[in-house]
Parts: sequence; C-alpha cells; structure tokens
Amino acid sequence: MKPLKVALLGCGVVGSQVIRLMHEQAADLTARVGAPLELAGVAVRRLGRKRDVEVDPALLTTDAESLVTRDDVDIVIEVIGGIEPARTLIVSALSKGKSVVTANKALLAEDGGTLHEAARTGNGDLYFEASVAGAIPLLRPLRESLAGDHVKRVLGIVNGTTNYILDKMDSSGASFTDALEEAQTLGYAEADPTADVEGFDAAAKAAILAGLAFHSRVTAAEVHREGITEITATDVASAKAMGYVIKLLAICARSDDGRSVGVRVHPAMIPRSHPLAGVREAYNAVFVEAESAGQLMFYGKGAGGAPTASAVLGDLVAVARNRLAGTRGPEESTYAERVVHPMGETVTRCHVALDVADKPGVLARVADLFAKHDVSIQTVRQEGHGDDAQLVIVTHRATDAALTATMEGLRELDIVRAVASVMRVEGDDD
Amino acid sequence: MKPLKVALLGCGVVGSQVIRLMHEQAADLTARVGAPLELAGVAVRRLGRKRDVEVDPALLTTDAESLVTRDDVDIVIEVIGGIEPARTLIVSALSKGKSVVTANKALLAEDGGTLHEAARTGNGDLYFEASVAGAIPLLRPLRESLAGDHVKRVLGIVNGTTNYILDKMDSSGASFTDALEEAQTLGYAEADPTADVEGFDAAAKAAILAGLAFHSRVTAAEVHREGITEITATDVASAKAMGYVIKLLAICARSDDGRSVGVRVHPAMIPRSHPLAGVREAYNAVFVEAESAGQLMFYGKGAGGAPTASAVLGDLVAVARNRLAGTRGPEESTYAERVVHPMGETVTRCHVALDVADKPGVLARVADLFAKHDVSIQTVRQEGHGDDAQLVIVTHRATDAALTATMEGLRELDIVRAVASVMRVEGDDD
Repeated sequence: MKPLKVALLGCGVVGSQVIRLMHEQAADLTARVGAPLELAGVAVRRLGRKRDVEVDPALLTTDAESLVTRDDVDIVIEVIGGIEPARTLIVSALSKGKSVVTANKALLAEDGGTLHEAARTGNGDLYFEASVAGAIPLLRPLRESLAGDHVKRVLGIVNGTTNYILDKMDSSGASFTDALEEAQTLGYAEADPTADVEGFDAAAKAAILAGLAFHSRVTAAEVHREGITEITATDVASAKAMGYVIKLLAICARSDDGRSVGVRVHPAMIPRSHPLAGVREAYNAVFVEAESAGQLMFYGKGAGGAPTASAVLGDLVAVARNRLAGTRGPEESTYAERVVHPMGETVTRCHVALDVADKPGVLARVADLFAKHDVSIQTVRQEGHGDDAQLVIVTHRATDAALTATMEGLRELDIVRAVASVMRVEGDDD
Repeated sequence: MKPLKVALLGCGVVGSQVIRLMHEQAADLTARVGAPLELAGVAVRRLGRKRDVEVDPALLTTDAESLVTRDDVDIVIEVIGGIEPARTLIVSALSKGKSVVTANKALLAEDGGTLHEAARTGNGDLYFEASVAGAIPLLRPLRESLAGDHVKRVLGIVNGTTNYILDKMDSSGASFTDALEEAQTLGYAEADPTADVEGFDAAAKAAILAGLAFHSRVTAAEVHREGITEITATDVASAKAMGYVIKLLAICARSDDGRSVGVRVHPAMIPRSHPLAGVREAYNAVFVEAESAGQLMFYGKGAGGAPTASAVLGDLVAVARNRLAGTRGPEESTYAERVVHPMGETVTRCHVALDVADKPGVLARVADLFAKHDVSIQTVRQEGHGDDAQLVIVTHRATDAALTATMEGLRELDIVRAVASVMRVEGDDD
C-alpha cells in the first residue's frame, strides 16, 4: 500500500508529540487508515536546536513553503500557531490540493473564512479539532453528531490557565497575583500571561465554537471579551459564601428569535451544583444545550503536548481516510448566516455588592433605580451595619445594556458609597 | 436537488420524534446535507393505532420488508429494537445498498458482525450513535476523534434506570424495591425492569463500547454481568459513610500487555470525588482514559424520545452526506482482534464487611487468609463490639479470581459469622 506523506510544520511541545506518536503507533495508524503514514518533512525555525523527540535530521527543513507545496506531500499538519507564516503556509498547502490539520485557534478565529475557502477550492480537508479544548472531542460532535439538532447554548471553560488560577483562588483564598505566580511556576501560565488572563485565547475558541454551533461565521473580533485580572480574593470568597464559584466562561447563545447569536468571554458566578463548577485545576469542560439532545457536557484536558497531539492524530486519521476514499469531510457550514449581536442585547443576570449608607430608605431608593431600568431583583441581602453596611443584590434576567445602565446609575446615587463588585451570574435558571 | 428518501422502521417513542424533527427541521437538514430528506414510508405493526405525531396515512405500511428494499429508498432508520425482525430488515436494506441508521444496541451487541458484513458487501453505511448513551456524542468520538490514540479504559454509567434507582437510594436512603417503584411510577423504569436492573441493557452497551474502543469484536455474551437487585440500603449507607457512592458501571479495560480486554457490568463503589459520582438521576456519563488524551468524560441524557432522535438525526445527516458524496464513513475496525479475558483475570479492588467474633486473634486470622490468596489489604476498620463486631476491609488491586477465592475462604472461617457485604471498588487509584 502506497504511504500517505505527511508534512509537519512546527516541532515544539505539540509537534514533537505528534512525531513520537506517529512513530510509536505506526502499526495501529496504518491499520486504522488503511495505508501507512510517512513523515515527509518537518519545518522548523532553527535546524540545530535540541528537541524533545528524535527526528531524522534529513527530514528537518527551514523552508516551510517548499515543504507544504511538495508534490509528494498529501497532508500538512500545522502546529506553529499565530497568524503568519501559518496562514500563508496553510493556504499554499490547501491551494495545492493537500489536506490540512491545524491546532491554530488564533488564525481560525481571525480569518477562518480564508482557510475554508482555500480548502473548498483545492478540494482538500481542513480539520481543527485540536484548536479548541485540546484533547476533548468537541468540534466533531458539534459539527457532526449534533448536525440533526439545534444548539441553543454553549457554555464552556476553555482556558486551562485561567481555570487553574480561579480554582486556586477558590480553594486557597489566594489573590489573583499569587495564584498567577503559582500557575507560572508550575508551567500552567506563560511568562507573559496576557493571552490567557485577558481572555484572548478563550475568545478565539468562543468564535470557533459559535461558528460551528450556529452554522455561521464568527470572528474573534466580534466576541465580547473580559479577563480575570480584576477578580479579587473578596469576590471569590463572597461567591463561595453564596454557594457560587467564579469561572471564566466562553458563552455562545442563540437569541430567542434564533436570528442572531451572542458570543462572549467573561468571568461569571455559577452555582456550585452546576456540572461546570466541579471542573478543577487546568481541566476544560464544555456544556452544550441542544433542543432535542438536552444538556450535554464534554470534559478533559484542554492543553499540553500529548493531549493536543491526540486530537491532531484523530484528525490526521480522518483526513487520511478521506484521501484514500477520494472524498472530503464536511465543509464549513455557514448557511444560517446568523449575526453576532452586541453585548448590550445579551440577556444575563448580575450579582452586585454595594457599600451603602446604613439609613432608612436606602433599599427603597436602590430598588427604585433597578425598577427604572426594568431590571427585576431576585434577592437582596444587607450585610454589616453603619459604615460597613453592604447590600448584596442578585437580579433576574435582563439585557446586559439594562444591567450596565443600572450599575452606572448606582454609582451616581449619593447613598451608594461604592459599587464594591459586579459579576454576571450564569448557569442558573431564572 | 433530488431528495434522499428515508424509510423509517418503527413509530414509537423514538420514531415519532424522528418524524417530528425531520418535519420541523426540514430546511436546516436540507442545508446541512446538501439535499432534502424525504420520508418514503414508515413501517408499523398496526396501521390504525394512535400516534404521538401526525403521519400521512399513505406513508404507513405493515410490510417493512418491501419498504426497506424499495428501489427509491436511500436510507433506512431502524428504531424497532430487539433481534428480529430488525436483523432481517437491516440486512435486507444493507444488501440492497441502502445506508442504515439504527439505535438497536441489543442486535449490535449480539450479532453486529452480520450487520457490518452486510454494510461492507452492500457498500453502504451502518451508523449507530443512538445505541449507546442516547443523545451523548460518544461513538463518533471513540471511533473517529480518538482514532489516533490508544484507549486504556472506558468506565461508564450507561443505564439511566439503574442510575435513577441508585441515586434515589443514595439521596433518600430508600430500599431497592421502593426506589424501583418510584422509578416505575415516574416512567424511568418499565413494568418488567429485568433488562435494566439485571444489567442486560448495560452489558449490550458495554460490548459495543469495548468493540469500538479496542478495535475488536465483542458480543454481549462475553460481558460479565451483575445487576443491582441485591444492593441494600445498608450497602448504600455504608458506602456513603466511607465517602463512596454505588453506581452500576460498564467497564471496558485493556489488559496490561494490551492483548486482551476485560468487559464487565456490575455495581461498584466509586469515590465521591470521581467525576462519575456526581451523575444524578437518569443521566448517563462515560469516562474514557486514553494514553495521550488522558481522562475524558462525556455526559448527557442516555434515553428518551427526543434525545435519542437527536443522535439518530445526527447519523442521518452523516450518512446522507456520504451518499451524496458517493462515499462511506469509517467501517467497523476489528483489526486488533483482542479477545475478552475471563472475569477472574480482571484486576479490581474489593470492599468487604465481615460480621466477626469480637475476640483477640480475629484480625490476624482474617489477614492471614487474605495473604494466602495474595490479596493485600489497604485499610481495615473494626466497628461495633461483641455480637455486633464488624470488620470493614478494603483491598489493594488483585485479580477478581483471587478476590473471589478470598471471599469464599472467609465464609468458611469459623470466626466469621457472616460476609455481610462485598462490593468492588473502582475509579480510585490504588
């Protein structure tokens, strides 16, 4: 049986695991694909560097462009990350009729359309299971298993770094800074943690998930994004006291009329009884609500060399089988053409803690302001007395615009000394 | 675009939901498939019966055999269940080159080989996502997403009825009989609950999961099966006191040398911190451990008309796309040809409660018996005194044969008045 030739772009944490597994599992991969998979070349930045895996030096090249367009190459695996040169290389490969497997969430979320278009033109496959939630089989279920259902909402913990930090803050009472430092020491956070803690990584994944779940094209720029850097130990403790836990969530939800979608990444309080609340350390989990299937959850490792390589190899087997059968997997499905609505139109709930003057009539004036903005209050609790008096309010569902306007109004009320904390509440039926 | 014609076998709980969804979601299905799906006929047992869904009477027929072999039919959906006439009809359809979507776990687990062979000969697809864990996308992830990985173990709650019963016993202290009665009243258990409570349903699913996970053919007859009818309120309370919960588990595990697999269904104690412990009511969840991916979990509704129909429709879209593209999905993969080893070779742990005589030397003699069978003890605790004295022992990992021999030996010891309970312990690293 003629082998299928595979070009690998990148030989870092994931790439080296891909090479190791292709080698160690060669016999199984051959049996599962129906033909051997042969490594045709590995594009790296520097030839001499020490690597985590043994690679035949003859396979290494710094000329990625020549590698991906080589006539004998059937499949290209891209694990470099970032926008360029990844985009140019993937488009070159697809245009030449190769199939591509990529883990590149940033590129897919910024310019997925260009890649899908190139796949269509070249008649090859573009698979990207590893781009969201690492090892967790999630994209294939969304684009295939649920193809006969209507997804209503996707609610996920898709960034392991921030989940590790928030979990530490929750379990040990640590501050954000201390928890981040611990995550960095343990290798869960990078030296520059911006992409994770500011929610950029999760936003890219949210865009990809929303596109698949709602059969539309969504880019990272359309995702409302808030990070976790402002979360204090007090916020975490106060959530805990109320039976909630704070998680950084990626939320993609269809509007009630089904015509638009809201896509957002922000910290939120969820009840401790929610399946996502039990997701500890750097694990990822994605909760999907579909009309017929009901509630589904997918849980596993969202990052790391071997878990990501597992997802890459699953895709590799699929695109290799497709090539042997002379066919392609499902294309990008954007027929529904739903638009992303502004954050203000998103319906959510709020938990707010107000430092107030402890005198009669305060609650009435605060309640009046909520009513003026058409925001209905679910619970209100007064804590402390005198200068320590605090009102803790949880609202019913309202548009984010109304909630934001209410918060602005509260800041201007003379009886409110400070809005101590504001946090959205999710995963709790109103 | 020429429509693809679909024949439906069965119009019960699942079938009527399939009809409803095909109708309600016609536009979406057309967009996702690339051609309309048209219901060509519905085979039922009795024509006049009242149904949960409106069906054009002209579509109804009692002649299923003629329907599935009709030249204009492209795809057959089988939701009758049971061995015959389902097997004959599916084989007829596949032999005629149709693709088949089925939810029939009993048939797949008893004689899947015949169906897969017919699919191969007829060059059609055989998809069966709905046969295990209802709406949860599980089979496609196992056979496709993890195709580049090595599954080590599958540990699942795959029967909603028994999970509902055990959950009630755990949360309310009810007896098995009372919990079963409640499940029957609420429609979670059938009037004759044998298939569920004796583990037959879970055993069929375990056989299907083991076959997919380990690329081998496994039948229900090869699955070691124990039901939950002997579980007492005392067992449940005693597990609870130790931080465990009793679940009916389907466990498929590769042997250490990788050459054989153990496939079993039995009640087991799992730690409350295990992700499966939190699976409440009639929900299903399946925990998968793979070499590279690590620990994964899939959670959702395991039964019910609409959830099962969601899985059926996902498969319908896939096989319809394949037909349009003139291709087939992945075939049965049994190349690894692993055999199922006897239960005695399975490695597990045991929790055992012994009513003993409260006198010096008892523990020494009990410990000696464990040692003689090469079973090492992890913890031992004495409870009560005098005639109420009980030894509660948890073992380290040992073969089931050694554990069984130890239990038999204990029953013969004169200082042991009774072996009050024996339960395997899973999901806890030794």
